[in-house]
Amino acid sequence: MALLYTNPGLDEETSEKIITILQNRLSNEQEAALVLKHAHWNLVGPNFIAVHEMLDPEVDSVLNQADETAERISQLGGSPMGRADDVVANRNWDKFELTGRKSVEEYLKALIAYYEQFIAADREAIKQLDELDVISSNIIQDHVQDLEKFLWFMRAHLA
Amino acid sequence: MALLYTNPGLDEETSEKIITILQNRLSNEQEAALVLKHAHWNLVGPNFIAVHEMLDPEVDSVLNQADETAERISQLGGSPMGRADDVVANRNWDKFELTGRKSVEEYLKALIAYYEQFIAADREAIKQLDELDVISSNIIQDHVQDLEKFLWFMRAHLA
Amino acid sequence: MALLYTNPGLDEETSEKIITILQNRLSNEQEAALVLKHAHWNLVGPNFIAVHEMLDPEVDSVLNQADETAERISQLGGSPMGRADDVVANRNWDKFELTGRKSVEEYLKALIAYYEQFIAADREAIKQLDELDVISSNIIQDHVQDLEKFLWFMRAHLA
Amino acid sequence: MALLYTNPGLDEETSEKIITILQNRLSNEQEAALVLKHAHWNLVGPNFIAVHEMLDPEVDSVLNQADETAERISQLGGSPMGRADDVVANRNWDKFELTGRKSVEEYLKALIAYYEQFIAADREAIKQLDELDVISSNIIQDHVQDLEKFLWFMRAHLA
Amino acid sequence: MALLYTNPGLDEETSEKIITILQNRLSNEQEAALVLKHAHWNLVGPNFIAVHEMLDPEVDSVLNQADETAERISQLGGSPMGRADDVVANRNWDKFELTGRKSVEEYLKALIAYYEQFIAADREAIKQLDELDVISSNIIQDHVQDLEKFLWFMRAHLA
Amino acid sequence: MALLYTNPGLDEETSEKIITILQNRLSNEQEAALVLKHAHWNLVGPNFIAVHEMLDPEVDSVLNQADETAERISQLGGSPMGRADDVVANRNWDKFELTGRKSVEEYLKALIAYYEQFIAADREAIKQLDELDVISSNIIQDHVQDLEKFLWFMRAHLA
Amino acid sequence: MALLYTNPGLDEETSEKIITILQNRLSNEQEAALVLKHAHWNLVGPNFIAVHEMLDPEVDSVLNQADETAERISQLGGSPMGRADDVVANRNWDKFELTGRKSVEEYLKALIAYYEQFIAADREAIKQLDELDVISSNIIQDHVQDLEKFLWFMRAHLA
Amino acid sequence: MALLYTNPGLDEETSEKIITILQNRLSNEQEAALVLKHAHWNLVGPNFIAVHEMLDPEVDSVLNQADETAERISQLGGSPMGRADDVVANRNWDKFELTGRKSVEEYLKALIAYYEQFIAADREAIKQLDELDVISSNIIQDHVQDLEKFLWFMRAHLA
Amino acid sequence: MALLYTNPGLDEETSEKIITILQNRLSNEQEAALVLKHAHWNLVGPNFIAVHEMLDPEVDSVLNQADETAERISQLGGSPMGRADDVVANRNWDKFELTGRKSVEEYLKALIAYYEQFIAADREAIKQLDELDVISSNIIQDHVQDLEKFLWFMRAHLA
Amino acid sequence: MALLYTNPGLDEETSEKIITILQNRLSNEQEAALVLKHAHWNLVGPNFIAVHEMLDPEVDSVLNQADETAERISQLGGSPMGRADDVVANRNWDKFELTGRKSVEEYLKALIAYYEQFIAADREAIKQLDELDVISSNIIQDHVQDLEKFLWFMRAHLA
Amino acid sequence: MALLYTNPGLDEETSEKIITILQNRLSNEQEAALVLKHAHWNLVGPNFIAVHEMLDPEVDSVLNQADETAERISQLGGSPMGRADDVVANRNWDKFELTGRKSVEEYLKALIAYYEQFIAADREAIKQLDELDVISSNIIQDHVQDLEKFLWFMRAHLA
Amino acid sequence: MALLYTNPGLDEETSEKIITILQNRLSNEQEAALVLKHAHWNLVGPNFIAVHEMLDPEVDSVLNQADETAERISQLGGSPMGRADDVVANRNWDKFELTGRKSVEEYLKALIAYYEQFIAADREAIKQLDELDVISSNIIQDHVQDLEKFLWFMRAHLA
Repeated sequence: MALLYTNPGLDEETSEKIITILQNRLSNEQEAALVLKHAHWNLVGPNFIAVHEMLDPEVDSVLNQADETAERISQLGGSPMGRADDVVANRNWDKFELTGRKSVEEYLKALIAYYEQFIAADREAIKQLDELDVISSNIIQDHVQDLEKFLWFMRAHLA
Repeated sequence: MALLYTNPGLDEETSEKIITILQNRLSNEQEAALVLKHAHWNLVGPNFIAVHEMLDPEVDSVLNQADETAERISQLGGSPMGRADDVVANRNWDKFELTGRKSVEEYLKALIAYYEQFIAADREAIKQLDELDVISSNIIQDHVQDLEKFLWFMRAHLA
Repeated sequence: MALLYTNPGLDEETSEKIITILQNRLSNEQEAALVLKHAHWNLVGPNFIAVHEMLDPEVDSVLNQADETAERISQLGGSPMGRADDVVANRNWDKFELTGRKSVEEYLKALIAYYEQFIAADREAIKQLDELDVISSNIIQDHVQDLEKFLWFMRAHLA
Repeated sequence: MALLYTNPGLDEETSEKIITILQNRLSNEQEAALVLKHAHWNLVGPNFIAVHEMLDPEVDSVLNQADETAERISQLGGSPMGRADDVVANRNWDKFELTGRKSVEEYLKALIAYYEQFIAADREAIKQLDELDVISSNIIQDHVQDLEKFLWFMRAHLA
Repeated sequence: MALLYTNPGLDEETSEKIITILQNRLSNEQEAALVLKHAHWNLVGPNFIAVHEMLDPEVDSVLNQADETAERISQLGGSPMGRADDVVANRNWDKFELTGRKSVEEYLKALIAYYEQFIAADREAIKQLDELDVISSNIIQDHVQDLEKFLWFMRAHLA
Repeated sequence: MALLYTNPGLDEETSEKIITILQNRLSNEQEAALVLKHAHWNLVGPNFIAVHEMLDPEVDSVLNQADETAERISQLGGSPMGRADDVVANRNWDKFELTGRKSVEEYLKALIAYYEQFIAADREAIKQLDELDVISSNIIQDHVQDLEKFLWFMRAHLA
Repeated sequence: MALLYTNPGLDEETSEKIITILQNRLSNEQEAALVLKHAHWNLVGPNFIAVHEMLDPEVDSVLNQADETAERISQLGGSPMGRADDVVANRNWDKFELTGRKSVEEYLKALIAYYEQFIAADREAIKQLDELDVISSNIIQDHVQDLEKFLWFMRAHLA
Repeated sequence: MALLYTNPGLDEETSEKIITILQNRLSNEQEAALVLKHAHWNLVGPNFIAVHEMLDPEVDSVLNQADETAERISQLGGSPMGRADDVVANRNWDKFELTGRKSVEEYLKALIAYYEQFIAADREAIKQLDELDVISSNIIQDHVQDLEKFLWFMRAHLA
Repeated sequence: MALLYTNPGLDEETSEKIITILQNRLSNEQEAALVLKHAHWNLVGPNFIAVHEMLDPEVDSVLNQADETAERISQLGGSPMGRADDVVANRNWDKFELTGRKSVEEYLKALIAYYEQFIAADREAIKQLDELDVISSNIIQDHVQDLEKFLWFMRAHLA
Repeated sequence: MALLYTNPGLDEETSEKIITILQNRLSNEQEAALVLKHAHWNLVGPNFIAVHEMLDPEVDSVLNQADETAERISQLGGSPMGRADDVVANRNWDKFELTGRKSVEEYLKALIAYYEQFIAADREAIKQLDELDVISSNIIQDHVQDLEKFLWFMRAHLA
Repeated sequence: MALLYTNPGLDEETSEKIITILQNRLSNEQEAALVLKHAHWNLVGPNFIAVHEMLDPEVDSVLNQADETAERISQLGGSPMGRADDVVANRNWDKFELTGRKSVEEYLKALIAYYEQFIAADREAIKQLDELDVISSNIIQDHVQDLEKFLWFMRAHLA
Repeated sequence: MALLYTNPGLDEETSEKIITILQNRLSNEQEAALVLKHAHWNLVGPNFIAVHEMLDPEVDSVLNQADETAERISQLGGSPMGRADDVVANRNWDKFELTGRKSVEEYLKALIAYYEQFIAADREAIKQLDELDVISSNIIQDHVQDLEKFLWFMRAHLA
């Protein structure tokens, strides 16, 4: 990885480690936006409109998270990879398999499973970033606070 | 393809043809949003800030186009496929190959090439949809009007 | 029908044909606003608040459609008939029969049936208007695009 | 009339009396919105644009009045009847007869006559509601305050 | 009760009677805001998001009611008591007993029972205030109009 | 007094009585706006800015009150008198005598005395209007609710 | 006249001269607001609503002018006199005599005559202020620019 | 005509034909904005303010139309000509001859005559563009929908 | 304590410890909102309006803090207790004793004392949460930043 | 030139002189709006988007200047000439000759030359108006302040 | 001083004189913003919050003044000096000496003294600029109008 | 350093250490705002407008940072020093030396050098504050996140 520059107080090796962690989070965040929209369009059943509308602000949230993560990579001198193929290539978590017009409950269950892996990976990233760069860690911490709120929304529906 | 229902005035066979056309357009629109953000994060050079900011409203445009197209598929009784893997699987146009921190000009050239294929495919879809469903055709016509305006913005930079 | 004036490029006979088609659509749009409000006030059950609130933006949509249709009649030199009695007199589709405090599902079923006839009539009008006046046809095409989106919302609830 | 429930402090018989009064007011308010739009589309003459625009905020007012009245009926356990046929069936005041493209003055005269009956019926309802339910009476009192302001606007034009 | 001053047209004895009535209403209104938030945080089940969001505007309503009631007490020369202990001490209605993560239906039932007592007490206060001070009575009348609308929302869910 | 017309349900004699009462209130409301601005410009001392800014929303309130009162007179067929000379001629309360750059406290004391007479007269008007026209009475009741809130603000400063 | 202080670069004698000029303008501006509202409430006839609404923004303008003029007097150490009696006492121009429900044309003629004197006095003040204080002169110049625009509106109606 | 580039799916010859049609429409739209402002400043008479204000939103409309038309020419690789001399040179319709302070009616008559030619030319352009480029045709269709609404406004004044 | 579920990366025992800490903070935050409003209504004296208005944004702040804290408890699988009785039962700090119409200074002193305990308890909670869950700790850290700003506002008044 | 009326304090001869000066400025301002749009549509090159967007607020500025100037002519009793032919006929400065798709730099150079003449003529008009009417002079002074700011923007690009 | 260019109608020598005057005003305006913030942070006492908040809009005012003054220098071809050292170097007025947490009164007294010198210098600049460039003079005149209003606010507190 | 008070949980010695660190950061933040504006006014060249406008939001950011830092000092009982002389006296980093009308590139290079020192000092402060007060550390961490984003914007221009 050839960096364009480094930030004050961060050497090249540290910067590369941070970028590797953030690139993985970026792909997860970009995919989450696609997966949430996929559910938004396909779910059906008695609570359709309420859950359909509940998903859109969360799409905006994860799109903003991806933007923040990718721009942090650029600030550190790296080059964020943000194409569909990059999302697929970087995926080291379970693919979202549910497709077709299915009930609200089925989509919420699949999304909850997706979010549990997503949050676990973000929490792992925070641990590693704490040793490397507090600013990058803060960014992912803010993301987790939002993701866990949305996880509650989904779990409360199925409780 | 098993449809959940059909719309007044459209039989099942016609609906399936429309859905096939729209699904291909959906994947193209979803990928365009990813590709534009990818460029937004990676471009550098003397015109950085102006072009960086010029891309964001167009990201919103193609995200809205994808939403409109996918919801049209659902209205016709179909099931839109909106995951990263679906984008990759449905791609029958050239992959966006440019990566890394590159000049504004290089990214604009690559995006122009991408948009020329994108618009050509949309115009082909309009011709086919005109025979099948005027409402679906209108939707893609509105998309092309927007895409051609943005193509002009990019071409004017390189002229 | 004595027209006050005609529009550039439209003779009196053509104008009268357009007006006859549009007057029928106007009554249908005006009645849709009343019927949606009637349901909005009377439905009950576990999804009450979500469906109650889903109906209001659609009421605004069909009120705007009626305004556009009636003003188009006036632009063509005609005189739109917009009273309750005109709605009843012009009705050549099934009356909305459901009354009383009933479940969300019952009202959605009745509204879906109403919308299927409504959209079918609009699509028939578009075919006729395409031969007579592209501007009037465009207006009804835009209406159908909106109505079919709302039909999807209702169908997705019952799926 | 079988009520779904009654409100704290109101027995079933009282509730039914209130509902009967409010249902009649609801039909009048719904018809007023239709009649005002009918005039809005059909009037012509030197003051066209000013009067055309003066009617629209009043349409919003009577639509809101109808919403408030109908929701009050539902709060009391009743079932509001809000279709075009209900408006016609409940009419115990003079039908609005003026149609066709006519002068601003003719439409204002016809609307003033309509409003005089409308307000007189509202004031009669207030007297009866004062004995039955102060909350329902307050609602109609607020409606009259608005209607009498609009009556002044119309009268001032013809003075 | 030592009043700081009295209002034009109200003697000290009358003012004290009004204040006593309003202080009781204040505690009820403040508690309603706490109870609604308590439900907002604890309810679960298929209609979670729609009902969760339906409660927040009503929290704002009863907070505004408490503000209006307390400021009316101050305007009359009295001293409103607004602490948690005052709410508990002034409670002459049933305590809200439901706790824990429970279904939407259980919380709505408990809130309906709470609101029935709340409204009955407000209506009793209106009767007494009508004899003492029309301005204070109007304030509580406006509160009841809002409370009865929200009661309908809750009842419609369980119907 | 020659009325231009009367309102539904109000005979000419009653209308004239209402108008006489409202005209007196109109002059008081118009003068209050002038007196509050006069204080706004002239007061000085340690609490200058807070009290200076506290007066402006109340100026807007009494200007709106005057507008409502005068338009009510016109609605009843009367002719509101709204010039400076009419204010002086109709004054049957104490003139506001304080002038010159004086302390916040002096101006608040003078304004409190003015408001006590103002409110007392409004409350007297409400009693008389209750017998004549409930709509007119409601208008003045709303004014008193606002005036008594502002009186509290001023009294709290001097307590 | 005992000034509270003087401004940098202005001696006491000059300040007193400016204040005398501005006090006269203040009374004229305050009266204009009352006179415009008086007309706003009393005019009738075919152009009622358009002219009724045309007057309100001008009322706001002259109220803002009075505020600016009075605050300028305070800035110069003087004490603005802003009560109804001060308006009457300071009037050295013709009283506005028109009262009663009269036609739009009659009120516009009377207002035009009032404005011609008002503007002439403002222009005279500008000449005197140019010798004394450019800031005070600028303030009145801005007022005249607005007043002459409104004078055109009124004249164009009668042309 | 040397084009800078062509759009996907349009050859150079077709593009030049479209551009020729659009350039003529551009000059007409730019002139309409000037003519409407010319009338806005010069008309007088009893309906002055209402008609004066009715013209401004239409000025914005035709300015936006010109912007859309000119940018379409640039998108097609052409070069829009937008100076005053280009408007005069391209005019193949009747010049707007009315000048001086004239009555509302005279200006409306002259504008109606101008609009009838304007719309007829737009409708002719739509027919030709339908064969060449559906996107360009759609743009002019939207313009006609707006122009015919404004034509109705003007005709309704004179009816 | 039986948890409904746990969050990714947090076992049941840790979750229960976090919930116990947050429940205590929730009651403190809910009480702070009540106590601030209590002061808002009861304080009097020369700085009344400025301090009265200074308290309202802080009420909104602590209400939002309570919402955030309670929703965090629910995200962790717990059940927040939010009734007046829960506030009283959980109070392990000094009760707010000041009542009656008292001077601004007295209320500010009492509120400062309350806030010093409030902040000290929040800072203690942060220390404990740092070991258990960084997200929960971040939430309380943000609360302290806001509380200490408001404490400065109050102290600056008494300095 | 036959004036419809004159303004207080301005005789007919003076008014005519002012109008002659302002009419020339009006044509210049109207043409500037056309020329700026012409450049907005035709410029190309690496700074395309930034300069393209920089021109639009200035178009709004000069359109507002033209409106102010033309309405001033009407206020003075004159008749503003605002058609494309009037712009061409009144031009006593150099025509804007640059056409075709050209670089940002070429268009900026041509616009700078145009603005230098434009500002010089405005400054000359100010000198003449200072002797005739301070209000008219103020209007053009404000225009020059804006034009010189925009001239700086253009010059800074080429420096 | 080597100018980059000169403005139409201003030779190099005149431009340099104007720039020298404006540079001195720029430093004064920039320092005023720093001094007001310094007071905003340090003042204490019973009127703390009202005066603390009164200062912030004035900070915005003087920051905008500095922007306008500096941009005027650039428009004239000069180079504005805007660093902290430039402020100190250009100061030919008394330094602001008050530091530490002090009472509202002490800070207001020090700010009044500062503003008296500030305004006196601005008024002197206006006199010189009137001979050189009316546009530059207008800019400083507008600044003085604002500064003298704020001086009144401060003086009224201490009166 | 004599503190006015200390915060709950912070002794006087610790508070003084925090204040010393924050005072240095305050001067740096205040100077950054001045330096950015200095560049904003002086830069020239082909990218002028885009970079000129890119600087303004960052000026707002560092002004807000200074406000937050200074208010934190006051919250801790200290006295922030915010005058131009304090900025100069506290500077232990390199002075910004570039002056005069220079190219965008030259100013960006100088600003990048300034920001590298600025961020390095902030990161050093975070390390020290982490031991003393987590709230103060959080404040500076948020500042660095913003500063590093802006540093990226500037570096991307020169890459």
